[in-house]
Order: sequence, then C-alpha cells, then structure tokens
Amino acid sequence: MIVEILAIGTELLLGQIVNSNATRIGERLADAGLDHFLQTVVGDNEARIAAAIDASCSRADALIITGGLGPTKDDLTREAIARAAGVEMIFDADQEERLRERWTSSGRVMPESNLQQAERPLGSELIANPKGTAPGIRIRMADTWVFALPGVPAEMVPMLENSVIPFLRGDDDAAVVSRLLRTWGESESAIGERLGDLYDASTNPTIAFLASGGEIKIRITAKAATRDEASAMIDPIEATVRERLGKRIFGVDDETVEVVVLRMLEERGWTLGTAESATGGLIAGRITSVPGASRVFRGSVVSYATEVKESLLEVPGDLVAEHGVVSEPVAIAMAEGARGRLDANVVVAVTGSAGPDPQDQPVGTVVVSVVTPEGSQVRTLQLPGDRERVRTFASTAALQLLRMSLQGVDWGSR
Amino acid sequence: MIVEILAIGTELLLGQIVNSNATRIGERLADAGLDHFLQTVVGDNEARIAAAIDASCSRADALIITGGLGPTKDDLTREAIARAAGVEMIFDADQEERLRERWTSSGRVMPESNLQQAERPLGSELIANPKGTAPGIRIRMADTWVFALPGVPAEMVPMLENSVIPFLRGDDDAAVVSRLLRTWGESESAIGERLGDLYDASTNPTIAFLASGGEIKIRITAKAATRDEASAMIDPIEATVRERLGKRIFGVDDETVEVVVLRMLEERGWTLGTAESATGGLIAGRITSVPGASRVFRGSVVSYATEVKESLLEVPGDLVAEHGVVSEPVAIAMAEGARGRLDANVVVAVTGSAGPDPQDQPVGTVVVSVVTPEGSQVRTLQLPGDRERVRTFASTAALQLLRMSLQGVDWGSR
Repeated sequence: MIVEILAIGTELLLGQIVNSNATRIGERLADAGLDHFLQTVVGDNEARIAAAIDASCSRADALIITGGLGPTKDDLTREAIARAAGVEMIFDADQEERLRERWTSSGRVMPESNLQQAERPLGSELIANPKGTAPGIRIRMADTWVFALPGVPAEMVPMLENSVIPFLRGDDDAAVVSRLLRTWGESESAIGERLGDLYDASTNPTIAFLASGGEIKIRITAKAATRDEASAMIDPIEATVRERLGKRIFGVDDETVEVVVLRMLEERGWTLGTAESATGGLIAGRITSVPGASRVFRGSVVSYATEVKESLLEVPGDLVAEHGVVSEPVAIAMAEGARGRLDANVVVAVTGSAGPDPQDQPVGTVVVSVVTPEGSQVRTLQLPGDRERVRTFASTAALQLLRMSLQGVDWGSR
Repeated sequence: MIVEILAIGTELLLGQIVNSNATRIGERLADAGLDHFLQTVVGDNEARIAAAIDASCSRADALIITGGLGPTKDDLTREAIARAAGVEMIFDADQEERLRERWTSSGRVMPESNLQQAERPLGSELIANPKGTAPGIRIRMADTWVFALPGVPAEMVPMLENSVIPFLRGDDDAAVVSRLLRTWGESESAIGERLGDLYDASTNPTIAFLASGGEIKIRITAKAATRDEASAMIDPIEATVRERLGKRIFGVDDETVEVVVLRMLEERGWTLGTAESATGGLIAGRITSVPGASRVFRGSVVSYATEVKESLLEVPGDLVAEHGVVSEPVAIAMAEGARGRLDANVVVAVTGSAGPDPQDQPVGTVVVSVVTPEGSQVRTLQLPGDRERVRTFASTAALQLLRMSLQGVDWGSR
C-alpha cells in the first residue's frame, strides 16, 4: 500500500503558509506502517490539480488530498476530482440539509455560497467532518483510492484518524516503527562518524541522521509484521548508539528538552522559574506548552527593559554599569533575583544581544545562567544567524544547559 | 520561466520537520515574478530523487532542489543528479582545499567523511555557500536548469538570493506582485460574500482568500512588465476592498498584528507590558520577535502559579477566592498590577484554561483585559481546540483586542 499526499493551495506555493498538513499526515502514515514516498503541492487551479491527481494515481495505491474544499470560489478540489475521474458533479440534498442544520444550530444564517459544499463527484462518497462544514470525499479511480480532506488542520486531523487511516490499514498490516534519539552539542558529521559502521550495516532497521533546531537526531526505523516485532528489532541498535553517545542523548521520539526538564524537576520536587531578556518569554512559552507544566513551573519575569531588571529582579545598577547588561554577573543576578521573586527552587536566566542592532555586546552574544539549590553555572555563547535564529537557539541552549545542570554535568566538560 | 521545487529528506515524509524551505523559496519566486506551479517532496533514496528530477525537467524551465548535500551517507542528491543527467561523478580538488581550509580556520579537524562534499556531477558547477561547508550545484539538463542547495535554511537562503534568483531573473523580466490584506474577526465565507463580485470579475489582478492563524487574508495578485505597473493595477482593487471591510483589515503583507501594535504604541509614545497566565509568555515572545520592540516593550510578568499572581502582580487573594482565577476581575487586576510593576502605560493581561485538564473554568475559556491611560476593556472568550490551539488563538486574540483598544474600537461592537 503506497500512499501519496497532494496539498492544494496557491498560498502554499506563494510561501504564505507552511505545509503542516503534509507533515501531520506523513507522521501518521509512518506510524500506521503505510509506505509513503512522495508529496506534491499545487495551487488553486482546476487543470493542474486534476493533472496532479492523474500522476499520483499512476504511481500510488492511495492518494490523500488536503485543501480546496471550502465555501469560496477558489476552492476547486471537488471539480478537479470529477475532471480527473471523468465524471459529473451531483448535488447531495442530504448534505444540504446537514449544512443548514449546522448553521442553524449555531444560531447563524448560512451564506448561500456554502451550498457548493453539498456538491460531489458522481460515484464518490462523503466523509463526515465532525469539526466543520466541509465534508471530505472518497472515490475509487481505477486502481487508486482518492481521499479529499479539508485544509484546516483541526478539521483534517480527526477525519484522517477516523475515516482514512483505518480504511487504508484494512488492506495492509505491515508495521513501520521509527524511534528517534535526540542529541545536542555535537555536529552532524561527528555523530555520523561515531555511528558510520552501524549506518553501513543497516538495511532493516535503517539508520538516518537529521539536523534541526540545533539538535542532531538519529532515526532508527524497522519494518515487520507487527509493531512489537519492529520495536524489538530496534532495541539492540538503540543500545549500541546509547553506549557510544552517552549523555549527548537527552530524549526519545517526541520528548523535547522542555518535557525532559520538567520531568527531572518533578522527580526532585523542585519548582522552576525563568528570567528572560533577549529571549523575551520564549523559554517560558516553550515550558508552558507542555501539559502539566503547572506542577513545576512558577512563572517568569521577562525583564526586557534594563530598568525592569533592576526594579523587578533586583539586579544592582552598579553591576550593570560595571559589566554591561549582557554579562555573566548580570545573568547570575537575574537568576538569583527571579528565584526570590518567583519563589522557585531553580531558575534559568538569559541576557543577550539578538540583533539586528547590537545591544551592549555584538549580535549573537548570549549569556545563560542556571541556579539550583545545589549551585550555579553561567556561560557566554556566540550564536550565529539573524534575530529569529539567535532567539530560538538561545532558548534551546538555555533549556539544554538547564537539563545538563539537573543531570550534574559540568557545562565546561562539553 | 516556470520553476519547480524539489525538497529532499525522509524526515519530511515521516513528518519529523515541516517543509519550510519550500515556503521560503516559493515566497521568493513569487516576489521575483517567476511562475511556480508545483512542489515535490521525496525521501533519501537515490532512484526516487532521480525520478523526481526527471519528472520536473519534463515540465519546468528550472528546478530548485534542497537537501541531501550534507556529509553523511544518507545525503544522496549529488549522486541522484548525476544519475538523472546520465553523467559520472568527479572529485573537485579545489573544493577539497576549501573544505580543509574552512575546518582548519575554525580550529577543528575535518572528519574524512566530509570529503564527499568535494564530489560533483560531471558538467556541473559548484555554487558558493558562504554560511556552511556544503557547496551547491548548478547543471543544465536538456532544457532545464537544475540547482541543488543545502537543506539548512540559514545556508540555503543566502545561496538562493545570491546565486539562483539573479540567474533565473536574467531570462525573464515579468513581475508578479502580490498584496495581502489581513483581517481578523469575521469568517472566510462572510468575507467571501462581501467580495464575491470582485472575485468573479478578477483575472488580472486575481483575488484569493486564505484562512490561517485565526486571520482571513485577502490576496490580490497582478502580473505586468514591471513591479511598479503590477503594483498600480492592485491599488484600485485594494481601495474597494478597504471600503467594504473597514477596520476588519489590520495590516498589509507581512505586517503582523504585533508589528501594527508596536507602531501604534510608538506613535503615541506609550510603553507596553504583558501579564500572562495561560499564554505563558507567548505574547511577550511574539512582541519581542519584532526588531526594535525594545523602544516600546518594558517586559512581562508570566504569573503561571496563582501565588505569583498574588505576590508579584498584587492580585488580591479575596478576588481570586470570590471570582476564580479565570475571571474578568482577576484579568483586570493582573493588568493593573503589571502596569505598576513594569512601569508601562499599556498592559494586556490573559488568564485562562488551556487544557488538557480544566483549570477553574472549562478548557478554552480565556479572559483578556487591556488597560491603557484612556481606560480598560475586558472580555471572556470561548476558544476551540487543544492546548496548543487555545494558547495560540488566545495570544492572537489578545494582540487583536489590544490593537482595537488602541484604535478606539469598542470590543462589544465586533
């Protein structure tokens, strides 16, 4: 069962939004053990959508289309499927009734343009959309199953889970299991050399390397009759990788550094706070993205203006005058001040120069300090890139250095 | 000049990263007036990469490939281009020298595996990579120019700007100009109905609608001999759209709500602070993403724990006991407290229940308050979706309500 993805939308081609739907569907297909080798994006153009459907049908057993099912006139997926299948469009009176009911029950009047969401290609079936008004479409075209889902992720995902994946899984029980080991602090080529012989020997499981977000990830993927079997094939490879990389590995699969840090803190019964300047709340935002963060996280003081560092974090004005606002003594004072203000056991503090104009120090200079009940560490980093990259890397570095402090690793030993 | 994009990486198919490179290149192609109708993604497989290159070459005048140029063994783009072009790989001694110099100058020893970055298909030229070790490749295949760039965005973007776009622009001077009018507060179909006749009449300029991030965007796109001409064709359509939509439009092109809010505050000489609970620093993080935010932004108190709301923002404990922590009186008290603590003229405060477990109120209940020198407003919202969506929408709603307060719009009039 080979599955392709076709995402529709001129906004994707023009770069106005990222194709996160393909990301979500790809993830789900891999998890379901369905082969997936190719994705396509085309704009809101009926002929080009139809041509892309044709091309996918010549290669794949199933095609999942997203986008172009809305109520406006640039929503052309329904018509393009009919064109590719060589069938007419029909009007579905039951669907009209469902649309009118949905609008009425929400106390609003349905714009008449929404009636196009009651049309479908002859021979197709509608797929229920529990979260919105646009139904999906399923149709058999020669040897390929074609599914069309809405482009809005919150509507698309439940339809994929409830109606598409189970249908496709009915035809194929092979399971692909992929395990991701996440490392930080060493280059992709250095990791690649440490594991080169494993890579050469690998056919099933396979090994791959991926650099993103400042991390190097090692993906081990196995294919077998069942998920358990595939998982068992991965275990010995993972053990060897761990033996070679040690504490460079900080998490597995979707264990982000924020998840790992919160778990370590909760195990010790310690609370956390942040004191942020250059990162402007990004570290707190990442920590609070984790459900249950409130069991550990007290809060943050984002002391963007220097006066706020002094008034709210009690950083002595003399210290700023003597060392500058982007300095190790100020970072430590911010952390100590926030510990008191937030009544937190552990604080990570960041001050830095994110650009585009230098502030106190050259752009990319970032100072991270972590204070715990067992001691404190501080380090000055030089980060590459523009404002966005400096801020993102600074957040990641701060969380990773916090993780190392909690593991008892001396930052200088990296 | 029709240009396609081919992104390479099994991590893209498995959904481990989003295809942000295609987004960036697409944006840049549109801006340069180059037609772009199709994007493809394939994994780290030499035969499939070669097949995708072949298919693109049959449709397009130019193909931009990203990814697969790194130093590890799953980097196969060089070999796949050679296979598609039917040529041999050669070793480039000059490139070897550049690689060794680069590693030596950064004080490190080059892993020998990096030497594969000195190989290239016969007949190709290398494209300089000012930000990294992997050079790009340019080769002519029949009627198509093929470019291969690294997958790391910070390396890819300058190479695109310096070496690819100018080369392609040399063959074609048509300009496509796209202008985006950003609205908030009304549904896509309602906006579509208000502008339906404009849509029907549009061929050049064209009009399209796009829903993302809680906004409805209206894209007006014109094609002409020059950028100025295309821009002038857009002006009258924009005027009509503005007449019909009024203050629903808050920004143009890449003017995010945070950019608009900071500009309005700076014009008035007012400073800004935030007091955040459910959003956990996201609003501050978005505001400080804008270069120059420090001219306006004082800082934020992320009072995640209820005790921090009381100790640091001076929210009376009685108020929390009587109304609950997710309530309008508490949101106003947070804003007032932060105004004093941060010495800011304007504060936006958010308290809410982001889930997965309800906190005080059902998941999705979010209270936003804005206090300015001219008065205060407060509103309780019911937001749909999971934790991530509630937090993102709450940040957006808070920034939009702040924008409306600064424009003197009564929130109740929406």
